[in-house]
Amino acid sequence: MSILKSTTDPFGGIILEPNNLPTDLKVFANDLKESIHRWQATDSKLVWLKLMISQSNLIHPAVNLGFNFHHTSEQSLMLVYRLKSKAFIPPFASHYIGIGGVAINSKNEILVVREKYVRKGQINQLKLPGGAINADEHLVDGVIREVLEETGVKTEFVSISSFRHIHEYRYQKSDIYFVALLKPLSNKITPQTEEIEECKWMPLQEYLNSSEISDFNKIVVKSTLVKPNFKSKLIHEYRSPDLYEFFLPDSVEDSNLVDRYF
Amino acid sequence: MSILKSTTDPFGGIILEPNNLPTDLKVFANDLKESIHRWQATDSKLVWLKLMISQSNLIHPAVNLGFNFHHTSEQSLMLVYRLKSKAFIPPFASHYIGIGGVAINSKNEILVVREKYVRKGQINQLKLPGGAINADEHLVDGVIREVLEETGVKTEFVSISSFRHIHEYRYQKSDIYFVALLKPLSNKITPQTEEIEECKWMPLQEYLNSSEISDFNKIVVKSTLVKPNFKSKLIHEYRSPDLYEFFLPDSVEDSNLVDRYF
Repeated sequence: MSILKSTTDPFGGIILEPNNLPTDLKVFANDLKESIHRWQATDSKLVWLKLMISQSNLIHPAVNLGFNFHHTSEQSLMLVYRLKSKAFIPPFASHYIGIGGVAINSKNEILVVREKYVRKGQINQLKLPGGAINADEHLVDGVIREVLEETGVKTEFVSISSFRHIHEYRYQKSDIYFVALLKPLSNKITPQTEEIEECKWMPLQEYLNSSEISDFNKIVVKSTLVKPNFKSKLIHEYRSPDLYEFFLPDSVEDSNLVDRYF
Repeated sequence: MSILKSTTDPFGGIILEPNNLPTDLKVFANDLKESIHRWQATDSKLVWLKLMISQSNLIHPAVNLGFNFHHTSEQSLMLVYRLKSKAFIPPFASHYIGIGGVAINSKNEILVVREKYVRKGQINQLKLPGGAINADEHLVDGVIREVLEETGVKTEFVSISSFRHIHEYRYQKSDIYFVALLKPLSNKITPQTEEIEECKWMPLQEYLNSSEISDFNKIVVKSTLVKPNFKSKLIHEYRSPDLYEFFLPDSVEDSNLVDRYF
């Protein structure tokens, strides 16, 4: 029996990496048990065990020793063990993020879509184009991409004008839906026929009066029409614009700020 | 051998529930294999398999048949299988959400904290009190709770004044950090000594000139000082204020809106 190779984090966590684990099931189970026994005599609070999907035979013995699930990627599972009974386990990602676009053309028409599929209990109303942002995608890029995919209309980001926070959205997690004001750069509609049943430019006044539009959707469109909203800015000290985006009131002034979009 | 009991969702998914699965390992593996074979001849696209932690011995055989990890709760693991090779698998929650509070008292002093522990590579600067919101917690409630816990100061929510979106934050997931303007309702500081090293009221001008404060933190405080920001509102048609919160420009007018906070 031997103590498993590990590293530590600054919060009292012991970290086990998939590459440093025995491949034999029994050796793994015995070493893990012995290691936990040793670590329980230290100040450490948690043990983090990452297993690749190819090591899924090791999950059951880890669970038998008291490990709980923490999170997964498609190809790995993170398990966690409390060395101290009241140790705080930092939660995993908790939210989905979506964004819809308000694009109003020079004829004062707003771009709307009707989806082909809706969740049970939902009414298939006309709505703003938009959708979930991709992993590592900026809100600005996500809304431009979604509007283009769904409608064929090219747009430019102007500002974030409102957002909604919802709980119990999917798998007990929450969702934030942002609404962006967009400037249309093209007019021709080419709907994505797989997901979109209908797509059109609708006179803004008709939209605001229509019974086919939810109160929420009317209010968020009105929100884009009042000033100011949140602009996307860059801050000088942040060197990686791909990793950061900042949304600030238009009126804030600072020599460290750079307008990202008009 | 028998076909496993399942239900379906509107998106071409077949759903297996933990209570409807055989407990015997071999029976489970054989039935699952046979079921997949049958479902492959249908229009269905995905198979969702939820296993409780007490069924962790069933993970390995499911993975051997081609299931991938999708997400976990502490006590369950969701696996997913593609019946069509290009079937779209909706991603799980992608973001952490945090919120910081700008509380400025009647002497024009701002509430700041210095944490005891910071991540590797980070400087332990003075910062705004705040933290991650809890599962199912509103932003408004989260920032009030965090500021109270960290500093002992009671506050009231005024508005959201800015936010920052970061990628590759933790476990390859992203983070949105909101900043709220708060109205202090008390002045006495009682720091939470476990996590907070220092906590004080700092003259606002000293804060804005200090080299101990990041540009970002200075800019978000300036953002709270310009008007208008996003207020928390209720919309009449949404019956469950515990499930929804809306943030809209102060200036938007609609008969369906109710101010939630001043």
